[in-house]
Order: sequence, then C-alpha cells, then structure tokens
Amino acid sequence: MAPFDPAAPAVPGANAPVLLDLTIDNITPNTIRINSQSANARLTYLMSRLVTHLHDFARETRLSTDEWMAAITFLIGCGQISNEVRNEFILLSDVLGLSLLVDNINHPKPPKGTEGSVLGPFHTHDAPVLPNGSTMTSDPAGEPMLAICTVTDTHGAPIEGVRIDIWETDSSGHYDVQHADREEPSERCVMVSDAQGRFWFQGLKPVSYPIPHDGPVGKLLQQLSRHCWRPAHVHFMFNKDGWDRLITALYLRGDPYETSDAVFGVKQSLVIDLDKVDKESAEKYRVKEGIWLLKHDFVLTTQEDTEKLRDKLATEALAKLGLRMKLVDHLPVPDLD
Amino acid sequence: MAPFDPAAPAVPGANAPVLLDLTIDNITPNTIRINSQSANARLTYLMSRLVTHLHDFARETRLSTDEWMAAITFLIGCGQISNEVRNEFILLSDVLGLSLLVDNINHPKPPKGTEGSVLGPFHTHDAPVLPNGSTMTSDPAGEPMLAICTVTDTHGAPIEGVRIDIWETDSSGHYDVQHADREEPSERCVMVSDAQGRFWFQGLKPVSYPIPHDGPVGKLLQQLSRHCWRPAHVHFMFNKDGWDRLITALYLRGDPYETSDAVFGVKQSLVIDLDKVDKESAEKYRVKEGIWLLKHDFVLTTQEDTEKLRDKLATEALAKLGLRMKLVDHLPVPDLD
Repeated sequence: MAPFDPAAPAVPGANAPVLLDLTIDNITPNTIRINSQSANARLTYLMSRLVTHLHDFARETRLSTDEWMAAITFLIGCGQISNEVRNEFILLSDVLGLSLLVDNINHPKPPKGTEGSVLGPFHTHDAPVLPNGSTMTSDPAGEPMLAICTVTDTHGAPIEGVRIDIWETDSSGHYDVQHADREEPSERCVMVSDAQGRFWFQGLKPVSYPIPHDGPVGKLLQQLSRHCWRPAHVHFMFNKDGWDRLITALYLRGDPYETSDAVFGVKQSLVIDLDKVDKESAEKYRVKEGIWLLKHDFVLTTQEDTEKLRDKLATEALAKLGLRMKLVDHLPVPDLD
Repeated sequence: MAPFDPAAPAVPGANAPVLLDLTIDNITPNTIRINSQSANARLTYLMSRLVTHLHDFARETRLSTDEWMAAITFLIGCGQISNEVRNEFILLSDVLGLSLLVDNINHPKPPKGTEGSVLGPFHTHDAPVLPNGSTMTSDPAGEPMLAICTVTDTHGAPIEGVRIDIWETDSSGHYDVQHADREEPSERCVMVSDAQGRFWFQGLKPVSYPIPHDGPVGKLLQQLSRHCWRPAHVHFMFNKDGWDRLITALYLRGDPYETSDAVFGVKQSLVIDLDKVDKESAEKYRVKEGIWLLKHDFVLTTQEDTEKLRDKLATEALAKLGLRMKLVDHLPVPDLD
C-alpha cells in the first residue's frame, strides 16, 4: 500500500463537526460539513448535493441492507465487465436517461443548430482519417449506403476543416470492438470537411441492434421488463476549434424502435428517410447505382454562442429551482455573498 | 455475446411512453414510466426515486460533460481495484455516510440493545471457529489483549450458541487480507457463546489505521481535505437464528480519531476503556499478568422486536416526509389504494 499522505490533516479543522453518535437524522449535515473543507467551491457543492440525494434516497426508500448490498454488487459488476473497449457505466448512464440529460444541459442548441444525441459507449480514438469518398466498412454482408453531407454554420455558410468522427455497427448489429478478434477499426472513420463544407463516404445502411445485455445493465433492463434495442442509426461527432463539439446521430424513419430507444437518443429532427443513388450520382461519386443514399446537412454553433446560451439557461433554471447561485467558470456554485 | 432474450417485449406495453425529443424537463417522468413496467412494485419505487435523485442532481448542479466523465472514470476505477478481498464500493459507501445510515435504518435498537456500527470492507467468511480462550492473532509485534465478553438479551438473560465473528488489524494497522502474501486468516476468528453467554479470547490491543487510500476513494478523500483514519477498534458480528444480527465495533477512548472517524462509525456507547489483567484473572484465563484487558457485555434484540421497531419507525418517518406509503414485506411501496 502507498504510504499515507501526511498532507491531509490528521485532525479536522476548526469548522469540522464532531462525528459521534450519528443518526438517520443528523448524518447528512455532518457528512456535508466534513466534505466542505476543501478550497474548491464547485467540488463542495457537488458533494453536498450528492450526499443529500444519496441519503434522501435511503431515507425515502428505507433501503434494506440486502438492497444496499445488491447495489454494491451491481456496481462492482459494472466496473469489472468494463475494459478498454467496453464501458458499462456509460451504458448505465445511457439507460437511466442521465447521458441524454447531461448532453442537453451542456449543448443547448439555437433553433437552427443540429440537435445532439447520446455518445454511447462505442466511440473509439483509433478510427483512421479517410479522404472524401472512402469506404469505411469491410463488411460484405451489409447493404451499401452512400452518405453525402455538409456542415455549415447557422447562417448556412460552409465550415471547412471540421473533423467528423463517424461510426456505426456492421450488418450483424455489432460495433467492431464487440468482436473479440478485432484487429483494426471497421465501420468507423474520421473525415474532414472540404472548402464547401462537404464530406461523403460509403458505409452501411444501419440496422437496429440490442445494446450489450450480457452484463449488469442488461440484467437490470430485463428485471425492469424493458427491451434493450436501439433503432438503426449512424453516429457523428464534429470537432473544430471555436465550434461547440456536436455529438449526434441520424436515425432511420420507420424503425420498430423509433419511439422506444433503450437510451432515449431519438429526436424528430434527427430522423431521416433514405433515398437511392441515381445514375448521375452513381457516376459522380463512383458508387453502384441503386445503393442506399443518406443526405444530410449538419449545422454547428460557435463555442461562444453555445456558452452564452448555456449560461443563460443555467441561470434561468437555477432561479426557477429557487437556488441562489452564481456561475464560476460557467458552472454554478452557491452565491454566499 | 449471449443471445438476446426474446422474453423481453420488443415494443413497450400500452402504458409505455413515446420516447422522442426528450428534454431537460421531460426526461425524468419518461424514464420513470419506461422503468415502471415490471410487476415488482418495490423495484419500480426504488428506480423511480433513484432516477429522480440522479436527474435532480444533474439539473441542480448543471453537471458538466467533463464532470460526468470524471464520475464514470471514478466508478470504473472503484470496480477495477476491487477483488475478492477488497470492496472499494463499500468503502465509498462508508466515507459518504451511507453505510452508517443504512445500518441505522435496518437495525434500530431499543434503549438497552447494543448499538451497531459499520461493517466495513474487511469481514471475510474464512475465519476459523475457535474455542473460548483461544488466541486469534499470529502477530508477535502487537500488544496482547484479553477480551472477556458476554452476550445477553435485553433482560440480562444469557444467550447460548451465538456465533460471533471477531476481526481487527494487526499491529501495523492492516487486516490480514491487505497483505499480498496472506495464506490463512489472522486477527480474525469465530467464537460461540457458552451456556452463560460468555466468550473470551486473546487478541491485540487495536490500533488506529488509515483506510485503504491507494484507490479512487483515497484520492477523493484527499481532494476533500479529509483524513482517512479510523480510531482503534475491534469488529464484532453476532449471528443466531431468531435474533437481529448485530454488526458493531468497540472503540478505544482517547484515540486521536475518536471524533473524526473517516467512516462515521463511532457511538459513545461503543467507546470503552481498557484495563490490565490482574494476577487472579491471569491464572484463571491462562494469560500473562499485566496484558491489556477488554471487558464488555453485548445485548441482542430479537428479530421480532427489531422488525416491529423498524416498521414503526419507517411508518413514522415516511409520514413525516409526507409520503403515502404502505409496507410490503416490511419495505415501503407507494400506497395507491
């Protein structure tokens, strides 16, 4: 074991509570006080709300020792099934609606901006940067699809040099990382928008698929009588300095899971119809005539505009909750002045 | 991956919500509705409160994507450092005051009953059953201590045949399981009370020690400017059919961490003074004169009395919270009648 760090005070400071005879009623304020000794006001606030909610949950439910232990075992299981290419806690956050909520809080969109959707646990950092027109799949069984997209600002002006991460499953409904024998990335790539804001590539018509259900999260969904399917979609993530990172996805209209996505990601503005590639486009983009065609125009917002909108919405929401807060580095802390 | 279980409905039931365009404001009721399809009313209630608190936490703090990801990474870390003999999530529950709270909720004590304390993450199931008078330590460096105890009911009548798990650290402040080269249990045993409700054994005068601080929980405490010490104590767990399981510990008066236990376990009724073994006792118990002496009388309550008291306190507390609940199998669920 690492040596104990003597920098931490051996005895709490003058403001620290006397921790004796803690009860159902006094454990919460005492835990909050002992957690309030750091100089980091944001951390203090986060811990204070976390402990309050955690304790209130136990009090309102009269949480049993068996239920507490089941929760501990569940959390251990989530950690232990996770690895470099699987993150069960992101999946848990997804199925509890937290991921969608956090994305909505952090990436508010003005009316014209493309809406966000959940990142999910399958984005990787090893996708190859491919030139426009490339094929990003090696799956011969899937239905080929040409995607022709643009990325513009809210005034319609093209944005050049945006890095776009694109990823989807293969025709069996599995991401490359779900195959134990994965040797290199497949059904994923990074493209860069050209001077006209365009990017185009060949992928697969996406299919609906179950999220990983052989772990604790899958068992939870089963206990809740919830299915674990996601409607067919392709993920997109847009990155360029000065622009608010956009994490989103496009969903196919008519999918059986269109209105029951296990991770709450579908927004009507992101539901699209596919077309077929005509003769002219087939020649222009050097693909086979008659394959599926996805066309979409994405709209980014600037980092500055997003920050302003986020601050405005945060201030309004906190006031509505009756909380007296101020924003420090764009994040709320109690306003004690 | 395991085959998808077709027993789960592919499309939600008639009462299931349409999951589209979820926002900061409507994600919570929709998540609760999709989680409310099982026949298990208790599970439905637990999930409903869990989701409400989780989402309220994100809304009140305007949780940032970076903070969300830090939490995910923290939880993964807790799972991955855990193993058969280390449970970082129990430790997390301990330092957040949740373990103490859950114990208080589940094991209320009438005035005469011995109070409970935190189980902690170091109880094991491989401790040997030793006859009265045995030595449960193999550490030559510690200060020997004779413990002479009784276990009675609230009227003072001895209880025979109670199995008592006893565990403490060695003189270096480590439990046996914290030593990588552990081959067999040490500083732990199971005793059984005799016809007079007595049990006695030789252990070590306990020492204060830091809880494991080389993992995520230790780092959290450091960020919170909290120390990670526990005052010197010996753990006891009492099991006998018909009696409420008692998990407790005895703490040494005057320990520097007596009022700042990192896991909130100390209760004044559990703080004791040690004595020294006199000549008569030394002969009677066949130990060296002058070693430390711990004497304590533990009082168990019946399962029935505890259940009644727990139900009564639960009903009162829920009414005070303004919740309209009923108890089913002693656990609250919403009373919808």
